[in-house]
Amino acid sequence: MKEMISLGLRHEENKLFILDQRKLPQEEQWVQCHNPFEMAEAIRTLAIRGAPLIGVAAALSLARYAEDAASSGELKEAALILRQARPTAINLMAAVDRACGGHTHLSVTSIVETAESIFDEDVALCKKMASFGEPLINDGDNILTHCNSGGLATAGIGTALGVIRYAHEKRKKIHVFVDETRPLLQGARLTTWELAKLGISHTLICDNMAAMVMKQKKVQKIFVGSDRIAKNGDFANKIGTYGLAVLARHHGIPFYVVAPYTTVDANCTDGNAIPVEERSPAEVNTLLATGQNGMTRVFNPAFDVTPHELVTGYVLDSGFFEKPAI
Amino acid sequence: MKEMISLGLRHEENKLFILDQRKLPQEEQWVQCHNPFEMAEAIRTLAIRGAPLIGVAAALSLARYAEDAASSGELKEAALILRQARPTAINLMAAVDRACGGHTHLSVTSIVETAESIFDEDVALCKKMASFGEPLINDGDNILTHCNSGGLATAGIGTALGVIRYAHEKRKKIHVFVDETRPLLQGARLTTWELAKLGISHTLICDNMAAMVMKQKKVQKIFVGSDRIAKNGDFANKIGTYGLAVLARHHGIPFYVVAPYTTVDANCTDGNAIPVEERSPAEVNTLLATGQNGMTRVFNPAFDVTPHELVTGYVLDSGFFEKPAI
Repeated sequence: MKEMISLGLRHEENKLFILDQRKLPQEEQWVQCHNPFEMAEAIRTLAIRGAPLIGVAAALSLARYAEDAASSGELKEAALILRQARPTAINLMAAVDRACGGHTHLSVTSIVETAESIFDEDVALCKKMASFGEPLINDGDNILTHCNSGGLATAGIGTALGVIRYAHEKRKKIHVFVDETRPLLQGARLTTWELAKLGISHTLICDNMAAMVMKQKKVQKIFVGSDRIAKNGDFANKIGTYGLAVLARHHGIPFYVVAPYTTVDANCTDGNAIPVEERSPAEVNTLLATGQNGMTRVFNPAFDVTPHELVTGYVLDSGFFEKPAI
Repeated sequence: MKEMISLGLRHEENKLFILDQRKLPQEEQWVQCHNPFEMAEAIRTLAIRGAPLIGVAAALSLARYAEDAASSGELKEAALILRQARPTAINLMAAVDRACGGHTHLSVTSIVETAESIFDEDVALCKKMASFGEPLINDGDNILTHCNSGGLATAGIGTALGVIRYAHEKRKKIHVFVDETRPLLQGARLTTWELAKLGISHTLICDNMAAMVMKQKKVQKIFVGSDRIAKNGDFANKIGTYGLAVLARHHGIPFYVVAPYTTVDANCTDGNAIPVEERSPAEVNTLLATGQNGMTRVFNPAFDVTPHELVTGYVLDSGFFEKPAI
């Protein structure tokens, strides 16, 4: 398999490495994933995350495994484990099926070629979304974003953050408000890290400050990524996205979703069919050792679903759509 | 001055102590405040907080100082420092002025009597609010609250949390959703601590999960406290409150504000006249050392202002009001 390098994933000299995103921004630690089972664990524990990127990473780990002489049975078992690593991002299942599904006999060459093309395609999809989304941003805009949808979430320049980056590269003067994104702080840890590297001016806020920022007219547009888009345009994204969409509607602020076709799930009629992962209470209550009294319960959904009515437009790799024509 | 004991403030044997709320829930550490200047520092650094409680604490520290033989000049200087310790909660300025204002010569007896009555009155005000608010809660209700408005925020049983507590004491079966309340986690640290002590069933969520909880119809009512209420009913409260009010309106969930008359500022015509404290970036970006790249700015308003149109009703010590008749 050829050499492939993105911000959070590297295939070099027949070894697959991921940048451990749990350690960012304090530490930039690359970890080798020796097989798909280690990759599944990395996906499960969020060492690697981002809907498009976990799909790409899963495919690459299967191809690496095939080249390392795994049997068809072993590959199929690995594919199953990878598919189940996280439930919400459809990109994961789609990429695994594309690399390893539908064949009784799996050929190494075809798995490797598919994995390489999944990687290359994701880079290209990001560029296309950026070019379709960039015209939505005006010179002088302040843009709010949630979680991380940049180079750490894809093999390319990102989805929502890719659009923002491209506007910056086109020399539009922009400023980004970054929701810290509790509980795991992907905004505070990852998005600020990317924006600082790119030299894009930005302000970190707590999630609960977004409403005030909108009321004070400090934000003109909101761009977010997605983990799964249903046929009717309802979409899942990081917990907190739905609330932002409601607030955007209340304040008359355009709210855009940016995602490649690999995020669309034609089998989901609407948002109710999207499975929402619930994660460990420890992600919430270990902060300052709160709620450790034996009585405090914790609710920790990793995603929420935003109904299409609250979406101003969809930036897909095939164009910009005001109505869900997915 | 007599002995006075509340959940977070004690006057015993002519010494004034506060429970350091920054250390909760890990540690219950009582700290003596030897004079009003130490109390002002405790208020500024949030060792003691809660709009009604900081008013009571300021008055007690002035009375303690008067009994400890402070001169009129020293008392006036102390009053000035206390008044400026935090800008948003009007209870602080009101209590200081009541204890020390309007006299050229300050009598020890009158300051002490005033401070004692401010304490006793706050306890009584909490009881009244609880009795007026409790009928709003139905058996089986799930209630969402933000920040901490309980015994740690007042000299009595609390404002919003006092209403909830009273419903529990009346044997209504209730469950409370507690917003963790970033950045300083007063919900996660203080409200869960109080609710666990009281044996009231509750679930901790991140602030950005409230919208999903509302959408899933897991919450029937929202109760919050206030740091200042303007004449037209607009009110300031912990950052995040305004967003909750917008979300409550979107989901058709009643949204109640609970506060004593000492929180009302007749000099503020509307919410625009309420000063909103902005606090240090360190409260936001020291979490996991995020945003320390030299480029990330931080916006950290401690409060936001909710317009009266979004309020279903006001529970005051004088009764329950559906329209702002303040």
